[in-house]
Amino acid sequence: MYLRALLSWTELGRRSISSEDLARCVGVHSWQVRKDFSYFGEFGTPGVGYPVSRLAGQIKRILRLGGSKKAALVGVGNLGRAILAYSGFSRYSLEIAAAFDCDLAKVGQVIQGIEIEDIARVSVLRDRKISLALLAVPVGAAQEVVDSLVEAGIKGILSFTACHVAVPRKVKVINIDIAMDLASLPYYLPSG
Amino acid sequence: MYLRALLSWTELGRRSISSEDLARCVGVHSWQVRKDFSYFGEFGTPGVGYPVSRLAGQIKRILRLGGSKKAALVGVGNLGRAILAYSGFSRYSLEIAAAFDCDLAKVGQVIQGIEIEDIARVSVLRDRKISLALLAVPVGAAQEVVDSLVEAGIKGILSFTACHVAVPRKVKVINIDIAMDLASLPYYLPSG
Repeated sequence: MYLRALLSWTELGRRSISSEDLARCVGVHSWQVRKDFSYFGEFGTPGVGYPVSRLAGQIKRILRLGGSKKAALVGVGNLGRAILAYSGFSRYSLEIAAAFDCDLAKVGQVIQGIEIEDIARVSVLRDRKISLALLAVPVGAAQEVVDSLVEAGIKGILSFTACHVAVPRKVKVINIDIAMDLASLPYYLPSG
Repeated sequence: MYLRALLSWTELGRRSISSEDLARCVGVHSWQVRKDFSYFGEFGTPGVGYPVSRLAGQIKRILRLGGSKKAALVGVGNLGRAILAYSGFSRYSLEIAAAFDCDLAKVGQVIQGIEIEDIARVSVLRDRKISLALLAVPVGAAQEVVDSLVEAGIKGILSFTACHVAVPRKVKVINIDIAMDLASLPYYLPSG
């Protein structure tokens, strides 16, 4: 969240930012900002603030976003197309470099400059050194697809599929469940 | 996450579930499951497990998902269309009941059974008693749109827009930033 805020500030051309402004943007107290950053060394200058782009670079290194990273999209339905059209990945030096689907009518189509490939050939990811995948396939297909991704050397999966998938301990899965997030909102609202 | 797991089990026709199975599905220890549920009363029967649908109903009440809830989609671009096409909301008794866009060429079009309305008329949400919104507009438009949603009585916003938006304290915003989630994966991966 700090990185996201700092990148927004970079895009606006700001060169330094106070812990108060950062705190407001991220939604924490400014002492929390100062405490968090103190773990990684002293970045800020009293009265001047934090150097925006240097701090962003430092956090990118901590998050291992130093070099450019490639990801593969698996499942090019409505959601998959929206993901391909989404331009926000480059901010974090991420690039969707491949797309796969099981529907042979889609294979060979080019969307957003990316040619859709046959999911049966997902093993090519290992040769292309792509170790991240975005999973946007139907629930029924999820586990089988994930097994083949793990087999192909995928190490991190961002899953949009609303079911649990089993992976070896060395593979990290982050789930995005839009319906669950929306469903959590009423809890915070005044009743009635 | 418990609710999500229980709903999946309901859909598979299971009537009871052990704390061990629930724990595996959610990714915690079984003692955590038993501890969490003990806060809300005794649900489980030793040797039999938890009654799936009764427990799901109980958690729905805790999360104020008892009755059906309506939400409005604001911004019908690629992502907005994917959201409209997504069928996972009904699981949580949620329904997208309206859609708005500022592009007059889109206004009047019907997508997934929902007619796109002019964003200038978003104030109708108050009369229709819709208090949840999904925000899928470009960064530059986000704050202005959010201001008009708050004015229209919206109390909860699920935002897909990669920028911070300011809202009154009584309004809850949950952010979904797909790029940020993807960017967090490399941190967990073996280096190299």
